[in-house]
Amino acid sequence: MHQPLILVTNDDGIAAPGIRALIAVANEFGKVVVVAPDSPQSGKGHGITISDPLRLNKVDIYGDDIEAYECTGTPVDCVKLAVHIPLKNRKPDLCISGINHGSNASINILYSGTMAAAMEAAMEGIPSIGFSLLDFSFDADFRGAQAYARKIIKFALTKPLRPGQLLNVNIPKLPEAEIKGIKVCRQAKGHYTEEFAESLDPRGQKYYWLTGVFVCNDDRTDTDIRALESGYVSVVPSLFDLTDEKGMQEIGKVLT
Amino acid sequence: MHQPLILVTNDDGIAAPGIRALIAVANEFGKVVVVAPDSPQSGKGHGITISDPLRLNKVDIYGDDIEAYECTGTPVDCVKLAVHIPLKNRKPDLCISGINHGSNASINILYSGTMAAAMEAAMEGIPSIGFSLLDFSFDADFRGAQAYARKIIKFALTKPLRPGQLLNVNIPKLPEAEIKGIKVCRQAKGHYTEEFAESLDPRGQKYYWLTGVFVCNDDRTDTDIRALESGYVSVVPSLFDLTDEKGMQEIGKVLT
Repeated sequence: MHQPLILVTNDDGIAAPGIRALIAVANEFGKVVVVAPDSPQSGKGHGITISDPLRLNKVDIYGDDIEAYECTGTPVDCVKLAVHIPLKNRKPDLCISGINHGSNASINILYSGTMAAAMEAAMEGIPSIGFSLLDFSFDADFRGAQAYARKIIKFALTKPLRPGQLLNVNIPKLPEAEIKGIKVCRQAKGHYTEEFAESLDPRGQKYYWLTGVFVCNDDRTDTDIRALESGYVSVVPSLFDLTDEKGMQEIGKVLT
Repeated sequence: MHQPLILVTNDDGIAAPGIRALIAVANEFGKVVVVAPDSPQSGKGHGITISDPLRLNKVDIYGDDIEAYECTGTPVDCVKLAVHIPLKNRKPDLCISGINHGSNASINILYSGTMAAAMEAAMEGIPSIGFSLLDFSFDADFRGAQAYARKIIKFALTKPLRPGQLLNVNIPKLPEAEIKGIKVCRQAKGHYTEEFAESLDPRGQKYYWLTGVFVCNDDRTDTDIRALESGYVSVVPSLFDLTDEKGMQEIGKVLT
C-alpha cells in the first residue's frame, strides 16, 4: 500500500504551536516532510526572495520520524525550495500549510503567507490545503482545529483533490464539541478600515503602523465569514488562475 | 468638467524609468498622485508590513504638478497608505501601477508587487490597471508601452471600469509600429523549472539563490502568453475573489 507523502509548511515559523499541531495530525497518515520559515512570516503574501540567498537547514525539532528543514525565506520560498531540493525525486501527495494562528477567511487569503504557501504548492501541481484557526494567541487550543484537519486530510487523501486544487480552511475558535460541522463556501467580500496608527518616533519624525479593522460587507449566505460566524468550519476551494471570465466578455467587446 | 484623479504606483521604486514613463502619460489625463516604494520591491507579491513602522515622505522628483510620496514599505503598503493618508478625502478615479520592468503575464501576476498594488487598489474599490513591459533592462524603450498605456487609460476613464475591476496589461518588447494591437485574454498556465542556483559562501556553507526558467504549457489560443508571442498587447481582466466555483460544486457534494 502506498504511504502518502505530505509536505507541511506555515508562515508563523517552524517552532509555532500551530505547525506542531498540524504535524501531529499529518503523521497519522503517512511520511511527513516539513519545510517552514525559521522566523515569523505573517502577511508576506505571495512574496519571494529575489535579491538575497536562501538557507535551508535540516533540524531535529519533531523527532526522528519527521524530516524537517528550516528556511530563511518566505513561505513561498519554503515551498519552492522543498519541491526542488529535499523533494526533488519525491512528489508529495498533499501539501498542508498552517495551522495558522488567526483567520485567513475572506480577502485575508491574499495577504496570508500560509495560504500563499499552499497556493504555491498547488501551482506546482500538488493538491494543497491551508488551515487557519480564528485565534491569534500563542497558546490557542488547537484540538478542534486538529479534529477537522484530520477529517479534511483524510478526505483529500481518499478522494484525491485534482492537481492544482487548493482549499482554504478556517476553523472557528470553539471547543471541538461546539463546532457544528463543515460548510463548503465562497470567499466573502470584505475590507479593512482605520488601517494605520500614526505616531512620532524619538526624533519627532512621523511614522505609520499597520492596524485596521476587518469589515465584512457581504450578506450572501454561502460565504466563509457567514459559515464561521455560524459555528462551522469554512472550506473555500480557491484558484490561482485569476482570470475574470465575465470581465473578458465585457472588456473584449469594447477594447481591441 | 471633472478632472480625473489618478493614483500611480509601482514595485521597481519611485525613481525607476518605468514609473516615470507612466506618470508622463497619466499627467495628460488629470491630477496625478504618486505613492511608490523608496527601493525596489519586485517579487513582494501581496506582502504587507506588520511588524515594522512605515514612513511616507513627500518628494519633489516629478515637478510641481505631480504630488509624489515615497514609502518605505511594499507596493501593497504604498496603496494602503495612499488611500488612508494623502487620498483620505479624495477617491481616485483610477489606479495605475508600473510600468513594470519585465513581464507579469501568466502566473507572474501572483509574485508581482506591481500587480499586487493594482489588486490592492481594486480591493479598495478603485478601478485599477497594472502595466508591464517585457524588457527587464533599466534603459528599456518605453515608447510603445506608453502609447498603449495612453490608449487603455483613456478607455478606462471614458468607459469606466467597475469598482474593483482590475486589468493585467503586458506589452511586448517591440517598437510601437510593430505592435499589432490589443488582445483581451486569459491568464496562461505556466510554471518555473530549475528554480535554484546552489553555491557555497566564503565560509563553505551552502546557499540557494532563486533563478528559474518560465515554461508555458498552455496551448489555448486566448492566453496572454500567446497574445504577447504574436506581437499583441495582452489585457487580462483579473479577480481578487479566488473562489473556485466548479470546485465548490464538486467538493460540496462529497465533503460536509
